Amino acid sequence: MDIFMQAAIDEARQGRREGGIPIGSVLRRGNDIVGRGHNKRVQDLDPIAHGEMDALRNAGRQRTYRDTVLYTTLMPCYMCAGTIVQFKIPKVVVGEAQTFGESLDFLQSHGVEVEILNSPECVELMREFIEAEPTLWNEDIMEL
Amino acid sequence: MDIFMQAAIDEARQGRREGGIPIGSVLRRGNDIVGRGHNKRVQDLDPIAHGEMDALRNAGRQRTYRDTVLYTTLMPCYMCAGTIVQFKIPKVVVGEAQTFGESLDFLQSHGVEVEILNSPECVELMREFIEAEPTLWNEDIMEL
Repeated sequence: MDIFMQAAIDEARQGRREGGIPIGSVLRRGNDIVGRGHNKRVQDLDPIAHGEMDALRNAGRQRTYRDTVLYTTLMPCYMCAGTIVQFKIPKVVVGEAQTFGESLDFLQSHGVEVEILNSPECVELMREFIEAEPTLWNEDIMEL
Repeated sequence: MDIFMQAAIDEARQGRREGGIPIGSVLRRGNDIVGRGHNKRVQDLDPIAHGEMDALRNAGRQRTYRDTVLYTTLMPCYMCAGTIVQFKIPKVVVGEAQTFGESLDFLQSHGVEVEILNSPECVELMREFIEAEPTLWNEDIMEL
């Protein structure tokens, strides 16, 4: 596994251990991780703290994102996809897109390259979580 | 002026007083404000803390947003527009859309009602700020 996706998966697992939603993300520049994070809806009572958003928040103020790649264990929702477009992040590497994700066309139509790894490990992270916490998952995707 | 937009403007002015970017937002449910906030890029070194995002964060976990209206002093960027779509917020009231904003088609195509007030007060807030702090503004819209 790519070390950057592995770091995103580590973040997702950390989130699950904290009682949260197991989605993690890493912002990469060259060989460096400039920000990493995971979903903190439960931990911080924060509905905007998806994994991607937490990684970008933790990266702090950046002059540009044009030289970065965002890794995320799950296909971005529209909030995170809109953020990727707004921040002009040129590429997103996605762990899996079978559990969730309707933003692929939006991202691609705005020139964002999307690489989907179809990682069984990422699928299993979500399968186990959704089976254990269906209400929490539906809250996070606004389907209550 | 609508009391909810006035509250959003008050938030924007508070942000400017703090040395930040003067964009404010309020989440309304019925006659209540359930969350309010302003851009905190400078104050919190947080690039995702646009006014709308800060208001939603401050509102905390909500069971649904289908019965809410989001007020914002400036037309939402794609991050905030994606969030509105993801959260299924049915209506956005916008102070002004002449300084910034390319997300109108995206919002409308996802069924969001957008009311634009063309408020001279909101335009003047941004005009004064951009004249005083052009680099900070360009950082916030990722145009450095």
